[in-house]
Amino acid sequence: MEQLATQMTAVAGEVTQLAYALDTFYFLISGALVMWMAAGFAMLEAGLVRTKNTAEILTKNIALYSIACIMFMIVGYNLMYPEEGVNTFWPGLSFLLGEDHSMEAVSAGGEQAPYYSKLSDFFFQVVFCATAMSIVSGAVAERMKLWSFLLFAAIMTAFIYPLQGYWKWGGGFLEQLGFQDFAGSGVVHLCGASAALAAVLLLGARLGKYGPHGEIYAIPGANLPLATLGTFVLWFGWFGFNGGSELKVSNVVEANAVARVFVNTNLAAAGGVVTALITARLLFGKADLTMALNGAIAGLVAITAEPLAPTPLWAMNVGAIGGLLVVLSIAGLDRLKIDDPVGAISAHGTAGIWGLLAVPFSNTDASFLKQLIGMGTIFAWVFISSLIVWAVIKITLGIRVSQEEEMDGLDRSECGLEAYPEFVIE
Amino acid sequence: MEQLATQMTAVAGEVTQLAYALDTFYFLISGALVMWMAAGFAMLEAGLVRTKNTAEILTKNIALYSIACIMFMIVGYNLMYPEEGVNTFWPGLSFLLGEDHSMEAVSAGGEQAPYYSKLSDFFFQVVFCATAMSIVSGAVAERMKLWSFLLFAAIMTAFIYPLQGYWKWGGGFLEQLGFQDFAGSGVVHLCGASAALAAVLLLGARLGKYGPHGEIYAIPGANLPLATLGTFVLWFGWFGFNGGSELKVSNVVEANAVARVFVNTNLAAAGGVVTALITARLLFGKADLTMALNGAIAGLVAITAEPLAPTPLWAMNVGAIGGLLVVLSIAGLDRLKIDDPVGAISAHGTAGIWGLLAVPFSNTDASFLKQLIGMGTIFAWVFISSLIVWAVIKITLGIRVSQEEEMDGLDRSECGLEAYPEFVIE
Amino acid sequence: MEQLATQMTAVAGEVTQLAYALDTFYFLISGALVMWMAAGFAMLEAGLVRTKNTAEILTKNIALYSIACIMFMIVGYNLMYPEEGVNTFWPGLSFLLGEDHSMEAVSAGGEQAPYYSKLSDFFFQVVFCATAMSIVSGAVAERMKLWSFLLFAAIMTAFIYPLQGYWKWGGGFLEQLGFQDFAGSGVVHLCGASAALAAVLLLGARLGKYGPHGEIYAIPGANLPLATLGTFVLWFGWFGFNGGSELKVSNVVEANAVARVFVNTNLAAAGGVVTALITARLLFGKADLTMALNGAIAGLVAITAEPLAPTPLWAMNVGAIGGLLVVLSIAGLDRLKIDDPVGAISAHGTAGIWGLLAVPFSNTDASFLKQLIGMGTIFAWVFISSLIVWAVIKITLGIRVSQEEEMDGLDRSECGLEAYPEFVIE
Repeated sequence: MEQLATQMTAVAGEVTQLAYALDTFYFLISGALVMWMAAGFAMLEAGLVRTKNTAEILTKNIALYSIACIMFMIVGYNLMYPEEGVNTFWPGLSFLLGEDHSMEAVSAGGEQAPYYSKLSDFFFQVVFCATAMSIVSGAVAERMKLWSFLLFAAIMTAFIYPLQGYWKWGGGFLEQLGFQDFAGSGVVHLCGASAALAAVLLLGARLGKYGPHGEIYAIPGANLPLATLGTFVLWFGWFGFNGGSELKVSNVVEANAVARVFVNTNLAAAGGVVTALITARLLFGKADLTMALNGAIAGLVAITAEPLAPTPLWAMNVGAIGGLLVVLSIAGLDRLKIDDPVGAISAHGTAGIWGLLAVPFSNTDASFLKQLIGMGTIFAWVFISSLIVWAVIKITLGIRVSQEEEMDGLDRSECGLEAYPEFVIE
Repeated sequence: MEQLATQMTAVAGEVTQLAYALDTFYFLISGALVMWMAAGFAMLEAGLVRTKNTAEILTKNIALYSIACIMFMIVGYNLMYPEEGVNTFWPGLSFLLGEDHSMEAVSAGGEQAPYYSKLSDFFFQVVFCATAMSIVSGAVAERMKLWSFLLFAAIMTAFIYPLQGYWKWGGGFLEQLGFQDFAGSGVVHLCGASAALAAVLLLGARLGKYGPHGEIYAIPGANLPLATLGTFVLWFGWFGFNGGSELKVSNVVEANAVARVFVNTNLAAAGGVVTALITARLLFGKADLTMALNGAIAGLVAITAEPLAPTPLWAMNVGAIGGLLVVLSIAGLDRLKIDDPVGAISAHGTAGIWGLLAVPFSNTDASFLKQLIGMGTIFAWVFISSLIVWAVIKITLGIRVSQEEEMDGLDRSECGLEAYPEFVIE
Repeated sequence: MEQLATQMTAVAGEVTQLAYALDTFYFLISGALVMWMAAGFAMLEAGLVRTKNTAEILTKNIALYSIACIMFMIVGYNLMYPEEGVNTFWPGLSFLLGEDHSMEAVSAGGEQAPYYSKLSDFFFQVVFCATAMSIVSGAVAERMKLWSFLLFAAIMTAFIYPLQGYWKWGGGFLEQLGFQDFAGSGVVHLCGASAALAAVLLLGARLGKYGPHGEIYAIPGANLPLATLGTFVLWFGWFGFNGGSELKVSNVVEANAVARVFVNTNLAAAGGVVTALITARLLFGKADLTMALNGAIAGLVAITAEPLAPTPLWAMNVGAIGGLLVVLSIAGLDRLKIDDPVGAISAHGTAGIWGLLAVPFSNTDASFLKQLIGMGTIFAWVFISSLIVWAVIKITLGIRVSQEEEMDGLDRSECGLEAYPEFVIE
């Protein structure tokens, strides 16, 4: 009998450990999928700019991802998820990553016991931070100085992103208010879009984008297979982005939840593609591929605030409305002469706002008012702090390349090479 | 003692839940890998058509995937896996996805208890449906009307694919007959190829493909790195396609089975590459890359009907024979003036047939006769029903673009943009 | 009571099986990620060569991967991991893969009981073997005969790689000495680089690379988005490469270890990018994208020898030093007129050596002397045996294409097609 009891304790302990291992592994795979989204942004943006700016945007993408990982490790992660925050607004400052959970802490059991590796949590979170920053690079493409951009990336990923992340996911005042944002339509996507908008306003439009009498000139992306590949990569990676945000998979309820998140995420993207394509067909007369791509992304961004509560049919609708809005938003921003070469502000900002506001339709814990407060808070903080940082950089280092460099292309001036050196370009 | 018994029940319950979670997670990851194959088809096809039709085929690929997901959610999944079928031929009609499994149902135990999330099953199945449809898009490339294609995609993924899927995987008459098709050499690949063949016969060859005196003109693919990338994506994704089709991983026997499926799938593709390359070298005098790519796909398709029973050596041989057959089939179809720009009918149809017929060599439960019946049934149903649907579309909307549009390229007429606008094209 | 004991045995057995399943699944997913690295090498190399040699290098990459899988299945795996070696130097010869572990063996328990599927181990190991071979293909690009290369690939993957693999990972004399190499900075990366160096020395530089008076001419890669994509693929796949090399995930300690490996691997790559970019900026005045890419790879290679022991901060530094070294090494090899079109010898060899020597800084079980012995042994064996094999091939079949073929491009002479047939090339 005593032997049985000992054996029971041993087996129960193994089961706890196994669940810990499964949840950690699920986190790591999810994180790896989100890391892969960095490739998606790089390909999407490289496909949507002109050949002469392609190497530079690739450099920007791989460098910003690297900087985000380093800055978030040094300070951002602690800021966003402090051991104990000073208050619900200010998390306090600390550095580097500590030890992982001990076997004892895990075995202690109870609600508070950790059920997955802390470092797997860091890995999952760091790729979210990098994602937010990736959104910015597309909007400022073809005219921003590389090193000024990278400096902003360091500040954004160390401070601007983590602080608002703390307010919601770190347990700060937005969390306590009841603001709902499952995987970051606001915390990640609207955040990135807000920083992008601040940059674009200070940076101005590309040369030749808008005529003196209100003309809008299309500047087509140079390599659409690349842009399509990038979109597929994002779609694929989003299963980690949303799927991992359930944070646990190791029992029936959680496993069902993760499955539902996968299904809803996929259907939202599908809905976004279809409506964007149809909207483009109706508005412009053609099945514009770039709109289909942005429709997919908008659908994904929109469902990200609440991919669990909706039925699959409603998830598809949330994405479909996102796909409609992104086409209108891209056209609208162009009228306002806000020049966003890849449509990032529309796909992540407009669709992100829609996603936040769509939560109350399926999740009864959410309210429009609280969603508006959360949305406003994120936008205000990120937009204003980014504007200040961009302005300081503008005054000191400058943010825009010279006219000659812009006409010649950033690849030569910033990177000293060409993306497609042997191909004859018009 | 009583306490121990209670504890035992609790631990046993946790173990059941953990197994459910692991099997669900395995399903979701497998499904995500198959979803990623959509990117593979898009890149493969975009690389094998001419530049002027590249944006259109990308649009087709992302749109067909989206439509497949939506139609399968609304009706296809229920058709293929009904709660209870009317009979072994006709599943009955129902709509949308219901609730997932309750904890009670899972805990009930026994043979009938569900051991993974129903929605994870839907996710896995929907990407198979999309795969079948992806096969069609390559074969009809460079000359078909976009919206007619998408209309067919809706019908195929809602009805044509699910019905024959029901006959085998849904428990219908092919299943009861003993027809063997592990992961879909027939249900997915031959199905897609049959619909493609019907389309190509009604559509005719591309302008300039065949001369008036039996000449066959090669129309080389415009971007072979893209086509190679697509093939690697398919190879990678196929681990989910075949690996996930074991449907369970959570014990020793099942884990060993999944491992064997991974190993065999990989070796079949490798065998296909080697023989296709050697065959091309012997027949045409050169190591034709496009044949190596089709060899990989043919090897993968061939092993899909039975990736578990073979030894690794035999799996390699099944793939190798697939690689040989695909080269001969591509050359043969060209002689018959069946114009398939990417070789999809050969890689999925011919190799799919070989895969089905190869099953009895390693799986003693299979018989050639039953494999022939299954093969014939799938081909007959899909080919004839597709032919009718294509014919109706041809008469009403039309399926082929005008000569001017075809010469000018579908990108401009269908999508209103170019895939590579800055590059100078010959 | 007896009933309880029976139940306990059953539950404990299920837990053992579940752990076996999780570890097997983790192995398979890790292996699939490493397989995906084959696509990364293909894209990286295809992006860094000239357009006229692109199809050939793609052919080489998909064919070498296939050959590696087949040869390792037939003989290499048994050589590297023999049931019982003859002695610590010589493993003995045997063929094909046997049966997987029986449920009895797994249930036996104890230290010796297998805890994951043998075939999942083969799958994981075979993709490592292919990775080593992939390294070679880049260094010999643009001038080597295709079929001679493939012949070498067969010998390398059947014998040269597995033998030194046995010495370390198979339990041979390097393992017994205490040489530390977690995931293969030496066994895989230095090994590949050593074979590449042997080839390049016998092969000579590309026409036009070096002038008669010591001039070094840059030959830029034709498609940098492709090269960037390849680098991201490698980065993503490396989570499987290093993460899977922990070999177990199913308890708290192991799960934490795998998480740490993921975090450290990611940060090493990030560190490599940043220092390579800054070094290039300082040395050449520009933010050279190709150096950033090689920096990422060098960071990954460097951390591979010990991704578990370092703190995240130190892991970043290991990668950062790798990123510095790779830039210097690429410039240095060029001075020595060792022509390596993609920088593979520097990224995998130089950074691999650094990685091996960096182990003692974080892992107290390691010593510099033992690391030097391991490094020297691997280099000596692989370099000398490769040199002999390459020399025999050179004398018999020849290894270099004719001057005309080289100037015309290998795509036409070896593959009979062009990678970008419609694009106008300068």
